Amino acid sequence: MTRHAKHIFKLDPAKDIDDSSLGQIVKSGTDLILVSGTDNVTEENVSKLLRRIRKFDVSAALEISHPDAAVPGFNHYFIPTVINTDNVTFSHGMLVEALMEYHDFIDYDSVSLLPYIIMNQDCKAFKHAQCHAVEDEEFIAMIHMLDKLYKMDYIYIEYSGMFGDRGLVAEAYEAAEHASIVYGGGIVSEDTARRMDSVSDIMVVGNIIYDDVEQALETII
Amino acid sequence: MTRHAKHIFKLDPAKDIDDSSLGQIVKSGTDLILVSGTDNVTEENVSKLLRRIRKFDVSAALEISHPDAAVPGFNHYFIPTVINTDNVTFSHGMLVEALMEYHDFIDYDSVSLLPYIIMNQDCKAFKHAQCHAVEDEEFIAMIHMLDKLYKMDYIYIEYSGMFGDRGLVAEAYEAAEHASIVYGGGIVSEDTARRMDSVSDIMVVGNIIYDDVEQALETII
Repeated sequence: MTRHAKHIFKLDPAKDIDDSSLGQIVKSGTDLILVSGTDNVTEENVSKLLRRIRKFDVSAALEISHPDAAVPGFNHYFIPTVINTDNVTFSHGMLVEALMEYHDFIDYDSVSLLPYIIMNQDCKAFKHAQCHAVEDEEFIAMIHMLDKLYKMDYIYIEYSGMFGDRGLVAEAYEAAEHASIVYGGGIVSEDTARRMDSVSDIMVVGNIIYDDVEQALETII
Repeated sequence: MTRHAKHIFKLDPAKDIDDSSLGQIVKSGTDLILVSGTDNVTEENVSKLLRRIRKFDVSAALEISHPDAAVPGFNHYFIPTVINTDNVTFSHGMLVEALMEYHDFIDYDSVSLLPYIIMNQDCKAFKHAQCHAVEDEEFIAMIHMLDKLYKMDYIYIEYSGMFGDRGLVAEAYEAAEHASIVYGGGIVSEDTARRMDSVSDIMVVGNIIYDDVEQALETII
């Protein structure tokens, strides 16, 4: 049996998607629907999207970009943290603040940290989180640190909006002994999906959903 | 049987200690000798101290403050990281740089991360690592983050040079479900040892060794 990376469709609660497209995405056979956005994410639009997803039988997780938009009822929650930031606010400052307010309500068994290495210098998150560009050698050292010292469950290699350096992603995949390598960026077709399938544990497909649903469905291989 | 915190004697390779005092410390019944310093730690003085410790049958670990002073032959290695720093260099910047150079030589099974929350604003490490003062609520949120999200093995509460807020340390000890709470600072007598014994998993005794060996030995209870 050929090994396949797990597949995630990422839905942005601030973006519109019609019922028919949503149905196709949710019933596509993807392993997980991840609700996650950056701008204009509110409790209201997250709740609304969750209700629409819940009409189907699929696992749904929420990536909590801001604690005010945390909504109960998801199967799992991911808390992002940025590794190549130059500002501690984005590594754990915001997280500590959120825990000060919300610790009592958190079921930690359903929460995972999601450490990001943001590789695309032109993407919004890179600038927002005050990241620095990561050289190849530094990148692999970060993978070892997260995998072998922090023993993280996941490491998210984020090329958001562009197709990544497959050779480098493959190096990370080889280097990680414990953590699952999550890859995101530029998976927009069967071909791009196949190219990252063998060098990651989990592939995240997002933007193409809003550009071309049929194309998005082809990423499930 | 009464539960006791484990006991660590911390030896500074840059400080002088005569053979008789060293023998007393090493044969004291402490659970671990931790070699760790901040200033003037070199491969040479670490190696020399290790050779002297190795004349006795005791576990010895090295806290690696700078990779140039990493020396083989210890039972275990701790890599410090500072949680309440405002500069990513001290949270993981230096660590990533060290891994870029030394990854190939590291046996990760014998290495643990040691995340510090530095509480004493007047100590050298606080200023050196560009820390901010931690309020009680923030402190407990940091404990939850390290314990339940990062799932760290250890959390080091560092009051270096002063006896800490026992009530607050007790709160951390109660809050931690997974991590061992390591306490350091102001343990200089049987009495101070007893007061922290019941609210920590591991107690670190350092400075008093160089001020008064007999007094230091009383911290083993």
